[in-house]
Amino acid sequence: MALRSADEYRASLRDGRRIWYRGRPVTDLLGDPELRVAIDHAALDYEVGHDPVHRDLAVAKDPESGEEYSAYYMVPRSSDDLLARSRLIETVTGVGGTLVTLVKEIGSDALFGLLRVLDGEARERVAAYYQKCRDEDLAVAVAQTDVKGDRSLAPHQQPDPDHYVHVVSEDSEGIVVRGAKNHTSVSANANEIIVLPTRAMGPDDADFAVSFAVPVDTPGLSLYVSGYGAGEHHEFEHPISSKHKMLETLTVFDDVFVPWERVFLCRQPELAGPVALAFVDYHRFTAVSYKLPLVDAFVGTAALIAEMNGVAKVGHIREKLTHLVIYAETVRALTEMAALRAQVGGHGIAYPDPMTTNLAKYTFASGYHHALELVQDCSGGLLVTGPGGDDWDSPEVRSVLEKYYSAAAPARERLRVMNAIADLTTRDFGGYHAVLAVHAEGSIEAEKKQILRAYEPGRAIAYAKRLAGID
Amino acid sequence: MALRSADEYRASLRDGRRIWYRGRPVTDLLGDPELRVAIDHAALDYEVGHDPVHRDLAVAKDPESGEEYSAYYMVPRSSDDLLARSRLIETVTGVGGTLVTLVKEIGSDALFGLLRVLDGEARERVAAYYQKCRDEDLAVAVAQTDVKGDRSLAPHQQPDPDHYVHVVSEDSEGIVVRGAKNHTSVSANANEIIVLPTRAMGPDDADFAVSFAVPVDTPGLSLYVSGYGAGEHHEFEHPISSKHKMLETLTVFDDVFVPWERVFLCRQPELAGPVALAFVDYHRFTAVSYKLPLVDAFVGTAALIAEMNGVAKVGHIREKLTHLVIYAETVRALTEMAALRAQVGGHGIAYPDPMTTNLAKYTFASGYHHALELVQDCSGGLLVTGPGGDDWDSPEVRSVLEKYYSAAAPARERLRVMNAIADLTTRDFGGYHAVLAVHAEGSIEAEKKQILRAYEPGRAIAYAKRLAGID
Amino acid sequence: MALRSADEYRASLRDGRRIWYRGRPVTDLLGDPELRVAIDHAALDYEVGHDPVHRDLAVAKDPESGEEYSAYYMVPRSSDDLLARSRLIETVTGVGGTLVTLVKEIGSDALFGLLRVLDGEARERVAAYYQKCRDEDLAVAVAQTDVKGDRSLAPHQQPDPDHYVHVVSEDSEGIVVRGAKNHTSVSANANEIIVLPTRAMGPDDADFAVSFAVPVDTPGLSLYVSGYGAGEHHEFEHPISSKHKMLETLTVFDDVFVPWERVFLCRQPELAGPVALAFVDYHRFTAVSYKLPLVDAFVGTAALIAEMNGVAKVGHIREKLTHLVIYAETVRALTEMAALRAQVGGHGIAYPDPMTTNLAKYTFASGYHHALELVQDCSGGLLVTGPGGDDWDSPEVRSVLEKYYSAAAPARERLRVMNAIADLTTRDFGGYHAVLAVHAEGSIEAEKKQILRAYEPGRAIAYAKRLAGID
Amino acid sequence: MALRSADEYRASLRDGRRIWYRGRPVTDLLGDPELRVAIDHAALDYEVGHDPVHRDLAVAKDPESGEEYSAYYMVPRSSDDLLARSRLIETVTGVGGTLVTLVKEIGSDALFGLLRVLDGEARERVAAYYQKCRDEDLAVAVAQTDVKGDRSLAPHQQPDPDHYVHVVSEDSEGIVVRGAKNHTSVSANANEIIVLPTRAMGPDDADFAVSFAVPVDTPGLSLYVSGYGAGEHHEFEHPISSKHKMLETLTVFDDVFVPWERVFLCRQPELAGPVALAFVDYHRFTAVSYKLPLVDAFVGTAALIAEMNGVAKVGHIREKLTHLVIYAETVRALTEMAALRAQVGGHGIAYPDPMTTNLAKYTFASGYHHALELVQDCSGGLLVTGPGGDDWDSPEVRSVLEKYYSAAAPARERLRVMNAIADLTTRDFGGYHAVLAVHAEGSIEAEKKQILRAYEPGRAIAYAKRLAGID
Repeated sequence: MALRSADEYRASLRDGRRIWYRGRPVTDLLGDPELRVAIDHAALDYEVGHDPVHRDLAVAKDPESGEEYSAYYMVPRSSDDLLARSRLIETVTGVGGTLVTLVKEIGSDALFGLLRVLDGEARERVAAYYQKCRDEDLAVAVAQTDVKGDRSLAPHQQPDPDHYVHVVSEDSEGIVVRGAKNHTSVSANANEIIVLPTRAMGPDDADFAVSFAVPVDTPGLSLYVSGYGAGEHHEFEHPISSKHKMLETLTVFDDVFVPWERVFLCRQPELAGPVALAFVDYHRFTAVSYKLPLVDAFVGTAALIAEMNGVAKVGHIREKLTHLVIYAETVRALTEMAALRAQVGGHGIAYPDPMTTNLAKYTFASGYHHALELVQDCSGGLLVTGPGGDDWDSPEVRSVLEKYYSAAAPARERLRVMNAIADLTTRDFGGYHAVLAVHAEGSIEAEKKQILRAYEPGRAIAYAKRLAGID
Repeated sequence: MALRSADEYRASLRDGRRIWYRGRPVTDLLGDPELRVAIDHAALDYEVGHDPVHRDLAVAKDPESGEEYSAYYMVPRSSDDLLARSRLIETVTGVGGTLVTLVKEIGSDALFGLLRVLDGEARERVAAYYQKCRDEDLAVAVAQTDVKGDRSLAPHQQPDPDHYVHVVSEDSEGIVVRGAKNHTSVSANANEIIVLPTRAMGPDDADFAVSFAVPVDTPGLSLYVSGYGAGEHHEFEHPISSKHKMLETLTVFDDVFVPWERVFLCRQPELAGPVALAFVDYHRFTAVSYKLPLVDAFVGTAALIAEMNGVAKVGHIREKLTHLVIYAETVRALTEMAALRAQVGGHGIAYPDPMTTNLAKYTFASGYHHALELVQDCSGGLLVTGPGGDDWDSPEVRSVLEKYYSAAAPARERLRVMNAIADLTTRDFGGYHAVLAVHAEGSIEAEKKQILRAYEPGRAIAYAKRLAGID
Repeated sequence: MALRSADEYRASLRDGRRIWYRGRPVTDLLGDPELRVAIDHAALDYEVGHDPVHRDLAVAKDPESGEEYSAYYMVPRSSDDLLARSRLIETVTGVGGTLVTLVKEIGSDALFGLLRVLDGEARERVAAYYQKCRDEDLAVAVAQTDVKGDRSLAPHQQPDPDHYVHVVSEDSEGIVVRGAKNHTSVSANANEIIVLPTRAMGPDDADFAVSFAVPVDTPGLSLYVSGYGAGEHHEFEHPISSKHKMLETLTVFDDVFVPWERVFLCRQPELAGPVALAFVDYHRFTAVSYKLPLVDAFVGTAALIAEMNGVAKVGHIREKLTHLVIYAETVRALTEMAALRAQVGGHGIAYPDPMTTNLAKYTFASGYHHALELVQDCSGGLLVTGPGGDDWDSPEVRSVLEKYYSAAAPARERLRVMNAIADLTTRDFGGYHAVLAVHAEGSIEAEKKQILRAYEPGRAIAYAKRLAGID
Repeated sequence: MALRSADEYRASLRDGRRIWYRGRPVTDLLGDPELRVAIDHAALDYEVGHDPVHRDLAVAKDPESGEEYSAYYMVPRSSDDLLARSRLIETVTGVGGTLVTLVKEIGSDALFGLLRVLDGEARERVAAYYQKCRDEDLAVAVAQTDVKGDRSLAPHQQPDPDHYVHVVSEDSEGIVVRGAKNHTSVSANANEIIVLPTRAMGPDDADFAVSFAVPVDTPGLSLYVSGYGAGEHHEFEHPISSKHKMLETLTVFDDVFVPWERVFLCRQPELAGPVALAFVDYHRFTAVSYKLPLVDAFVGTAALIAEMNGVAKVGHIREKLTHLVIYAETVRALTEMAALRAQVGGHGIAYPDPMTTNLAKYTFASGYHHALELVQDCSGGLLVTGPGGDDWDSPEVRSVLEKYYSAAAPARERLRVMNAIADLTTRDFGGYHAVLAVHAEGSIEAEKKQILRAYEPGRAIAYAKRLAGID
């Protein structure tokens, strides 16, 4: 069972989960056409395991038992392991139209982090849970960011304590938790949710230092799927977002019981920071890996539309393409370097170099909006004044479009590229990508902070003293 | 009749015009709910003339006849006139939710340009036409950008000559034109369309050097409204774009006859550049004037959401707000200065200083995407993971949202501000604004070119020589 | 006597002042060739009063007495006054080879500030002192920035209290002050020094809230002239810095007695901030006015050397020139706008709009180093690998240089322009300009802080609420 | 003899070379104190071979003969070889106070390029010459950039053909060349000069397609050393540039005879481009390797002076330090990656990946001036208003300085760091570094061009088509 099929994955989502979408409870998750797009997108993580083209990358083999399992769950021990993981994530995201699939990526990021920094009984619980996820080839979401309330206040200072997920009580069986997490990706179509603390915590915040895992249909758990980007998407008009979607939820824990064997951290505030950060170490690397198809898409679509518009040889267009190449390739080089500079942490588990990972992520995020401008500049105003899918479907209108929108390429091809660019840069889907660039897997400020923290200043300071003659 | 009411304007759109939308001919323009949003938005240009708050700004009086007419049509003679025009445009755009109304702005821009650079009989025709527009308080669109085909080719080199609007024939009555113009704003809900050449032209392009005006319901003229941003917009989710919209058309002239009294330029390639540029002089000033509410909205929403999130005092947030202020206020100062440095051209008609106008436009356009990043950074990921309008309408879901999305402000207010920011920066509407920033009223490259052209290098070169001791 | 000649100014510097330069006391200020360059440079402030070309700008007339006096001392009452002052400062700085003369500019900045915010007896003392400076046409330096010690500590927390100038004692005659000020410009060749507090102060810092004026030869006052940029400067190699120089001193007050009529502020910490800021209001405007020749020089030299190198028509060079024009002209427009938006403060005294002044200064400062890059890029490596003055003076070498360094201009002209650019951008003099851009008259951070403080957010916040539907 | 001592190197410079400096012929190269600084600096390349600390890095061993030779001359065969070379260059430049030593680096760069792209007899000559350089441990300069005249003209179009070095005649013995090269680094203190064509050439430019090597004392060769940065440098005031210097020459070939065995390319324009580019492949990698100590110095000095000023914990200072870290570490990561992605070219010789090398160089160059601003911002105005070396040497003045310039560190240390920063960023030496950043080893534009040329667009274009559904 270690390599489920896409259909097995889909079938596994039929349970008693409480999902809300557009104001109503979802009774038939697989039957809702909009939610189905997200499920089919996530199913790519399962398809690649059975696809001869991707099998080598997507399937790992247990050296002892010889059993095959999803490569997403392979615990990294070296640079090569991390490089292979990066390539897998990049490849499947590429198939996924620049959108990460995430149902195995994020869960394994969290598990690797927990396995690396925990010890003793807690680690044994994580190890057992990891084995289950791997053996059953589960789709796992991670809920980390709390809703937070007024951010100028610590968790325990919030007027409403439920603004951070917290332990309400514990007994010999397990713990009861309450509160809500924000922007939990793929939770609505996952099998499991791992909960992590959102940040380092002090003694007063002990109740909020909690980590555990629950099945999505656990009693007391409700998921409110974001309505962002809802609505029908014509394939001609939205060539990407009509096929690829990710669900984000407000994830509410209303006195949810968690048995001890699924509790990884409970009221140990001193471990909240290390656990949060260990996940981040992997998850930002996942992030930069899955950004690579997106930055490639910027270079490729800009070059293609410039060619189709007949401006590919114009000086300022070449300048803009060059900047896009510099942007994309610097992100790529730093991502690869983060793996090459892998460090080995607790229990022999490797992780990408934090400073280099954050350099890659920062380079991606801080250059993103400028890249949008460049792509839009190469494309032209037609991005937002062009015809819609219904126009193209109408034979009468189409003939007009074919005549007037042909350029250095036929109208059909040019409009299709134009619409792909609009999807990536001007539509709801593009806005989603843009906000993800700024905030997802840690904000730009978080990346800067982490770079300064991970940077070892000794060499530079010593050199400065030597130059000044005061060493 | 010189100050029509909004209803008179709406009623005037009921004629035989050939509009296509979403693949079908539009038979009831005013009855289509999506198109109606754009008509009601444009109607603001008429409402302000009857609104006591805006009347002073919106109504001009003929010094001779004493008759009142729309201030949009007041030919500028001084810096003060230009400042007043700028304030009018800014004010009505502010009422219009950051979206320019345009139905009188762009037409008057074109008319001022034509009145300033033409002479003789051509100017008399323009003057008569101008008088008609003003007296009948008409809504006027301008079609300038041709569809262009392969941009590496001049108009006469295009395989399909219809890729630029051109003169097919002329006789004693008038001319016949054919071809198509692209992204013609507000044409579908205007009374008239003025056609201008898109750029300077050489002798081989004589047929393409043509300018004229036609009523929108002229035989042979078809308008294909862009499907961009189509669809229903819930007011909670799209607080701005549910109420404000601009229509863009592919504007096809299929052997349209234009009588001589409406022809302003015909086969005079040497005048194509001056006519195109004179319009641009005014239109870029209109542009920077109508961008002011948008840049204010960036500062205001970012400051407001930061406060509501509880992060207004955080160092990096203050830094970002400062950058937004610098951005907004530099655009504002340069816009104002463009009017203060007004030049007086042909026939005593004033126009804003081209270099300063282009500095303002360039500053706006080249800083736009970075401003988006800053606003999104101050807001948080909730921009694209938050609830939709249906969620808010559901009492069950709303109570959950009210509990979990309250912060340093109640959830309702915070989510409303969040949605306004999403509308401005991440949704289709935000993408529309972003592409307009890069391309509308001249691209960033066009602005740079115009700055260098308008800059008088004498002083700087002389000074350089003096510094070098070679003067 | 109200309009001294340059020679009268020079002669006035012969007194008992204690100046140190390059490790030795200066006994003959006028006779030291290096210091003399600075004196002759400052003398431009006197020459313009007698130069027919500049007289209109440089000389004011008392409306009552009809007496002429230096226009630098004309108290501004309107935008026009501020514009005239800006033009005067720009003009004389232009004559001064991009280096401000400052001996009347900075003193009048301080006096205008004091006259505007003080009241009662203190203001009377300032008024009397102002009258003396104006009537005797004095050269006046301003010492504001204390040496500050450890900047994480407030003045009263410093281990050495002398790290901020402070009041040691007071009696019926006057006060005694001690401490040192840093980077005091033109003090060594001024007649007077006005001391201002460096920043807002709290009650614990009362002793440090002191402002007064002393003649430069006051007992107990010692000036240590910076050695930066010392040494001989061949005119061919340093076409600008061989003729223009500004002296900066460490200004030490060693129990200096100041009679009450020269004390403007004593132990009134609540006034320290307002006095400091009122000076800054004027001084940053002086700064942006005197930066205009420098930004012009960037545009002019870059354009000239590109022409001489034969690359003026190359695409990327035109792009760089355009950026330099945008930079220079944005600074110019904002500077002018700061005057046009003048506000009128206490006692009817006008001052440039603080937000706009700081926008101008910020635009200048934050774009400065990029401008350096662009100018250097247009110039070529010859900036730092070219021949020296001795080479040019040698007939044998010169003939080689003339052959090999000619391009699209003769070698002599090209090398002269190259050297002017080196002086401005790569030499000690250029480094001086660069650090001034970042720190002088307030750092970049100080400008950002002042922009946010001066910005009135009401309009933007109200608009944001309206857009969100929560007004 | 394969590992000469520094003294042997110095002694080898005593020959009949014709050097001009500051307008006069140099008769005693080693005796001139200013030139001697450059010679002693270059001698570091020899000292490291005998220094136990650096020996492992600096000495290579011939696998066959077992003979030791300078590691600079080790022909790279792999990523590891290139990494070792990079580390050697970085290390010795670090010892050299941020200034590359270059006397073995640049020559070997040229030799590796020639060895890689030439074939047949030409390559045999290069191989023999390479063996000589390596066996005799020679100091070798490279003269590539011609003086160029009017850059809008090709070599053969120049009014003066000597503006590009060219073949005047050839016979059975060898060739005669004439013309001049510009900014030839370290030529005055090298043993040999290798001449390379400056760029790709067409058939009309055949005479200019020439490459050869000559000893520096070859008849007809004259070197005019740049006077830039000449003059005495007090160690306190110029802690770096008083000890480290590089000589740049105008290198004039006045009918210089070159025997055939030293001619590598003669009138083969089709090889000019490949030869020029092969050198560039190595030399830009040398460049980014030797920039690493400089970017480290920026981080280290900024952090150190901020600490000493007492502002290290201030928010905006931390922000600036973070940017410096991002800058330095991105350059470092890309440099390392260029080696890791090594390609193997002709004759099994490895070279760093051109795209990645140029990404590193571009990142360094385009961020350089902003880094200067950040370092200066962290330092304060004292950089250009502080005391000179003579002041420090005077006991009387020093006691004043010690009192007033102490802060969170003693005055001596703080002023020394301040002066090191001034040397790096504001003084002649800093200007030299800045212009090198923009122009040396290829300009910023050259790097952009090379990035676009080296980028393989296939993947991105194919992906764009797939996203648009037109594959």
